[in-house]
Amino acid sequence: MNKVYINGASATQFGELWEVSPRDLARQAVENALGDAGISTDKVGALFVGNMLSGILGGQEHLGAFFAEELGIKGFACKIEGACASGGLAVHEAVSAVLSGKHQTVLVLGIEKMTDHKPDDVAKALMGAGSDAERVSGATFPGLYAMLAHSHMNAYKTTEKHMAAVSVKNHFHAKLNTKAQFQKDITIEQVLKSTPVADPLKLLDCSPISDGAAAIVVSSVSNKQNKVCVVASEVATDTLGLAQRKSLTELRATKKADDAAFLSSFVKRKDIDVAEVHDCFSIAEILAMEDMGFYTKGTAAEGIVRGETRLDREVRGSVPIVNTSGGLKACGHPVGATGVKQVVEVYDQLVGRCGKRQVKQAEIGLTHNVGGSGATAVVHILRADINR
Amino acid sequence: MNKVYINGASATQFGELWEVSPRDLARQAVENALGDAGISTDKVGALFVGNMLSGILGGQEHLGAFFAEELGIKGFACKIEGACASGGLAVHEAVSAVLSGKHQTVLVLGIEKMTDHKPDDVAKALMGAGSDAERVSGATFPGLYAMLAHSHMNAYKTTEKHMAAVSVKNHFHAKLNTKAQFQKDITIEQVLKSTPVADPLKLLDCSPISDGAAAIVVSSVSNKQNKVCVVASEVATDTLGLAQRKSLTELRATKKADDAAFLSSFVKRKDIDVAEVHDCFSIAEILAMEDMGFYTKGTAAEGIVRGETRLDREVRGSVPIVNTSGGLKACGHPVGATGVKQVVEVYDQLVGRCGKRQVKQAEIGLTHNVGGSGATAVVHILRADINR
Repeated sequence: MNKVYINGASATQFGELWEVSPRDLARQAVENALGDAGISTDKVGALFVGNMLSGILGGQEHLGAFFAEELGIKGFACKIEGACASGGLAVHEAVSAVLSGKHQTVLVLGIEKMTDHKPDDVAKALMGAGSDAERVSGATFPGLYAMLAHSHMNAYKTTEKHMAAVSVKNHFHAKLNTKAQFQKDITIEQVLKSTPVADPLKLLDCSPISDGAAAIVVSSVSNKQNKVCVVASEVATDTLGLAQRKSLTELRATKKADDAAFLSSFVKRKDIDVAEVHDCFSIAEILAMEDMGFYTKGTAAEGIVRGETRLDREVRGSVPIVNTSGGLKACGHPVGATGVKQVVEVYDQLVGRCGKRQVKQAEIGLTHNVGGSGATAVVHILRADINR
Repeated sequence: MNKVYINGASATQFGELWEVSPRDLARQAVENALGDAGISTDKVGALFVGNMLSGILGGQEHLGAFFAEELGIKGFACKIEGACASGGLAVHEAVSAVLSGKHQTVLVLGIEKMTDHKPDDVAKALMGAGSDAERVSGATFPGLYAMLAHSHMNAYKTTEKHMAAVSVKNHFHAKLNTKAQFQKDITIEQVLKSTPVADPLKLLDCSPISDGAAAIVVSSVSNKQNKVCVVASEVATDTLGLAQRKSLTELRATKKADDAAFLSSFVKRKDIDVAEVHDCFSIAEILAMEDMGFYTKGTAAEGIVRGETRLDREVRGSVPIVNTSGGLKACGHPVGATGVKQVVEVYDQLVGRCGKRQVKQAEIGLTHNVGGSGATAVVHILRADINR
């Protein structure tokens, strides 16, 4: 793969932002990302907008042109949609546009405004990510991931306490991220005693409904001192519905995208220092850590409990520190923004500006973004340029 | 631009297809396109789905994975959305994917199922293509294009009879297309006497609500005898709302995309033999023919009345024959499918398989796809390979 650089990155506050419009969120993320890259909008050849729910919840489609107008960006603009992987897919399309030679510098905006709507409407809209059969039969995403959790518990003796450890870790990280939706610690006991949502998942196993935006500048050239390259951008798909899958203890799309990313980048798994992983539910991070080969099947939960993926681990393990942003669980999950925010967080880690949550000597990072219950998976590997 | 080939193309019947599901439509278009290309699904590296309304009208998002599962396509899949230009944008992203070197062969599916829903719901959903201010103020797309028509009438003495000639021509062409929604002639008098929709536009100035799908196979290699290359793929954007435009007698995005397409392809306007032009309303084809430089401003209507863009013209003019498929007006306008169907039609013309509506010795063709009232414009130029 030719060199593709990230030259700027920024995310807004994530949370319940009732006073802020989508236009304001987009402007804030984009102005900061362009400022970070040291360029003005007239250098942007194309705008890729990752968003899922604006049409269903707000009746507004055509978001490429919508935000191009708002941001004063001329030229190509379009919306990329793949449920909760919309942001990751938009990053992939931006990388592809730069590799095609069509554009030197392009912009990715991931954005979602969810909290202005009734929670039931949002839950219903999110089922647009699932299969029609699942939707018609009344399934919800917590319910679908609860089935995955039960399968994993049956196969590998995974417990509710194991899953709770994921949420506890991600809250611990979010406490160090001023842009996170929940900047506070929680305990295993609090997770276990929180309101049941879909057995075995409880409220504190679930990522929240959130507002937020994130933007990155992708280019074939870099004028930065601390250069960061995208060395892999891979996407894989699987069946939309769980009923059509051969196994419910893994997400096959994650495995395929991850294998392709490591194969194409020549990076080894043990060299990944930091990773943002799609923890829409606590079980999802356990699945992902196994499906991506950081742990063999059935062993991720114990590793997470031992703190191997926590920022405060005492020795550098062979697995990355995971979800320093707080992840979807504690940083928040504005669906279209998530895949872009993951890249923002890893970029910030690789250039060393994460302050209290900085992973020491982070040189290679990974992002993992999932759509639906695993029908789409997007994996990016970012690397600090050797010449920095 | 490196060579990008279209190796297969197919569109379904367009019309009110109540008995046919979106899955059936997609399968039909894709199986025929793959058959035309002589390949099986396992050769397809990526699937780009152009669609606008599936989320708003049907609650189903995540169409990339949805149709990838249905069609048995592994690997990358995502939905591309830019209102009525969704199909053209999906073609652009497919060309970009091939140029990036990431994939050798990719598939584009444009699809929309509109007639299962109440017309008022569809009209409301389509306003998702416009600005929020337009939507809140109760504007409709016929109303917005009526404003463009009035501006053009005031500036250039364009008449309702001129506009009617566009619909008459496109119905004349559709009569020769067995896949068109309306395969029958209409007269100027019938257009002028048809039900008023938004003054000066009447029912027969407006494209219908339609179901349909179209698919093309895009590749960096060709095994076809009659090779067709994509020699330009350009996208431009303008303000979403009309109120923010400097001029209402032109669509600036069309001009920009068109200029870029001719500049990058080294093709001359007079060499375009056949064109599929975005005639969502009769005035739109007049605007497009001028904005694309086939006529100077204010002269397209008279040229169309003189029959210069009709299949049965007596001499080869310096302008292309336009909308041999019947255009959006008479072939139908399933919005996400339209931009892909335009490419299918031009491809069919360039390989010489259009039967009764075949343009003689067609070697170079153009497609022009618009989103909203001109916020997005996509222009493709296709050329029969010299070595055929």
